[in-house]
Amino acid sequence: MDTPGSEGEVSAELGRLRASIDNLDAALVHLLAERFARTQQVGELKARHGLPPADPDREAEQIARLRRLASQSHLDPEFAEKFLVFIVTEVVRHHEALTRQPD
Amino acid sequence: MDTPGSEGEVSAELGRLRASIDNLDAALVHLLAERFARTQQVGELKARHGLPPADPDREAEQIARLRRLASQSHLDPEFAEKFLVFIVTEVVRHHEALTRQPD
Repeated sequence: MDTPGSEGEVSAELGRLRASIDNLDAALVHLLAERFARTQQVGELKARHGLPPADPDREAEQIARLRRLASQSHLDPEFAEKFLVFIVTEVVRHHEALTRQPD
Repeated sequence: MDTPGSEGEVSAELGRLRASIDNLDAALVHLLAERFARTQQVGELKARHGLPPADPDREAEQIARLRRLASQSHLDPEFAEKFLVFIVTEVVRHHEALTRQPD
């Protein structure tokens, strides 16, 4: 692959890459919105039936699965695991708020 | 919407929601892999041309845009911002490693 040379070429290439990243981020936000709607439902279901918000077994399975998927996609499995832990931490924080203040 | 009653119904509903969450997580991992490939290219381009790995102006624009998209998707804008900061922090960590050890 050619290496862009002049300042204008570098700037154009950076612009193209950033446009792709922006598209991917929009898709990620929409998927996160959908995921969050589903975990809200899980949280409400658990709160109604007195189930604990966190589930370490389920979380361990999710981590193992996402690490496998990440490896297949040439994504650093550590990154995928950190990502899931980040998401789950946020979700549990919301679930705990729900449990404290059932609507 | 009906509230599931018996333990079996609750368990079935939880299983359905978790299957959706697993599908969404697989999609998220694949999009993250694609995003990461693009930011690797950005990092390599910047490293080759002596540009700094972090770009606070670009990051501020990304945060403002993702917060708008999140609001439109009924996702907590704070969550979207934390998500982007998490991703960008990871990416900058990788870029800095590239800058220290150019290949």
